Amino acid sequence: MTARSDTLYIQSLAKGMKVLECFADHPSPLSLNDIAEHCEMDRSAAQRMAYTLVTLGYLERGINGRGFVLGKKILERTFDYLRSVPLLERATPLIVDVQRESGERVELSLFDDLTIIFALRRQTKRQTYTTTLIGRRLATIHTASGRSIMSHLPAEEVDGILARTTATPLTSRTVTDHAQIREMIAKSAIDGYAIASEESMLGEISLASAVLDNENRPIAAIDISGSLADWSADAFAKRFAPMLMSATKALSGKAGLS
Amino acid sequence: MTARSDTLYIQSLAKGMKVLECFADHPSPLSLNDIAEHCEMDRSAAQRMAYTLVTLGYLERGINGRGFVLGKKILERTFDYLRSVPLLERATPLIVDVQRESGERVELSLFDDLTIIFALRRQTKRQTYTTTLIGRRLATIHTASGRSIMSHLPAEEVDGILARTTATPLTSRTVTDHAQIREMIAKSAIDGYAIASEESMLGEISLASAVLDNENRPIAAIDISGSLADWSADAFAKRFAPMLMSATKALSGKAGLS
Repeated sequence: MTARSDTLYIQSLAKGMKVLECFADHPSPLSLNDIAEHCEMDRSAAQRMAYTLVTLGYLERGINGRGFVLGKKILERTFDYLRSVPLLERATPLIVDVQRESGERVELSLFDDLTIIFALRRQTKRQTYTTTLIGRRLATIHTASGRSIMSHLPAEEVDGILARTTATPLTSRTVTDHAQIREMIAKSAIDGYAIASEESMLGEISLASAVLDNENRPIAAIDISGSLADWSADAFAKRFAPMLMSATKALSGKAGLS
Repeated sequence: MTARSDTLYIQSLAKGMKVLECFADHPSPLSLNDIAEHCEMDRSAAQRMAYTLVTLGYLERGINGRGFVLGKKILERTFDYLRSVPLLERATPLIVDVQRESGERVELSLFDDLTIIFALRRQTKRQTYTTTLIGRRLATIHTASGRSIMSHLPAEEVDGILARTTATPLTSRTVTDHAQIREMIAKSAIDGYAIASEESMLGEISLASAVLDNENRPIAAIDISGSLADWSADAFAKRFAPMLMSATKALSGKAGLS
C-alpha cells in the first residue's frame, strides 16, 4: 500500500467489516472472545466493533442474549444491491421461463475475477439449501459458468485467472489440470456453452452460457443443473443448450447492463 | 447516548455503513460529491470511506470508471446471513411446495419490530421485480404478515408498534386507522391468518400466517399473494388459508429457530 493510499484507508471501517466477515467461516452465535480471536483483534476492539454493529442493526444478540449473530439489516443492503444491477431485473423473467420449460434448477452468477457469485436462483424440489443460496462463491475455473465466461476473455486474462486461483476442488471429480481446463474453455468458445460434470457436487451436471455486455465483455453466466440419475451428460446438453443459449443471447449486448 | 456507550461507538465504522446505506434512496452510480451530500460528510471523508469500501469490495467503480456502485461483496454477507438463520433453511421446501400447490406467489418475511423484511420468495410469472426482492421492508401494521404476527403479541407490544409506526401508506387502500387495524389483528387471532387487500399493491390480495418459536413468540410470517383479477378475497382465503396454516404450523414451536 502506498503512502497516499495508506492515508485514505480507514482501519476501523475495515476492522468492522472484518467482524461481519468472520461469520462466514464460523457458525454463529459468536462470543466477544470468538470474534476477537477470529478477527485477530483485542477483546476491547471486538467489543467496540460489536457494540457499534449491534447499534446499527448489522449484528444482533443471539438467543437468550448469548453471543452475536448477523443482523437483519444485512438484507437491506442485499435489496439495494439486487435492485442496482439492471441485468438481474432483466434476467428474472427469462430465468423463470427457462426453469419452467426445463424443469431443472436455473441460476445466474456474476463474474468476479477468480470466483463467480450466485445472484439469482430458481430452485427445484428439496435441494441442499446452502449450495444454491444467493451469494455463494465458486472458483471460476471449476464451474461451467466460469469456463463459459472465460471462453470470452483474452488469453492473458485466462492465464491470469488460472495462475492466481488457489481454490480447493469441491469434489473428487473437479478438474484441476490447467491443460484440460484450457481445452474445455476452447470447446466452450466453439459450442457457445460449457459443461461441468460432478465438479461442484457429485451426481450433478451443469450446463452454462455467458452473458456479454455491449462491448462483448462477459459479465455473468446462466446455468442449468440437473441430476445424472435422470440424464446422461450428452442428452442433458442436447436437450437444454439451445434453450439456455437463447436466454443468454436475449440478455447480451445491451448497454448499461452491469 | 451515555458516556459509556459513547466511547464504545466507533464513528468511522458508522460513517462507512452510512455510505453503503445512502444507495438505498438514490440510484447508483453516485459520485464522491453525491456521497458527501447524501451522507452529510465532507468530500475528504467521503473519499476515504469510498476508497476503503472499494478496497474491501463493498463498493465498485461504475461503468467507465464513473462514480461508485454497490459491490458484489455485499452478496457474500447475504449468503452468510441466509445460512445463519435455521428457520430459512427449514422453510424453503415448504415454501416451494406451497407455491407449487397454490400456483401463487409465496414469501417468508422476518419480524423486525416496526417492519417485516422479505427473506425468502417464490416468484411467479413476470411480476414487478423490486416488489418481491429479498430485503424489502414493509410496515408491520400495513401488511397481512405483520398483522398475523401482531395477533400473537401482548397488547402493550401491539400498542407500541402502532404508536411508533410512521410509515407512509403504499396505496390508497392501505388501512391506517388504528381501531380498524386492531380489529383486523383480533380477527387474525381467531382465524389463524390475516388478510390484506390492495394495501401493498393495487389489485393484489395477501393472506398470511405467523411462525412461532418454541416460546410462542412470533418470529416470521408466510404469505400467499394473488390477483383480484383471478380471485375474490373470500374465495382466495377459503382456498389457500388451510394450506398456508399447515405450513406455518409445521414450522412453529421448534427450538433454535431464529
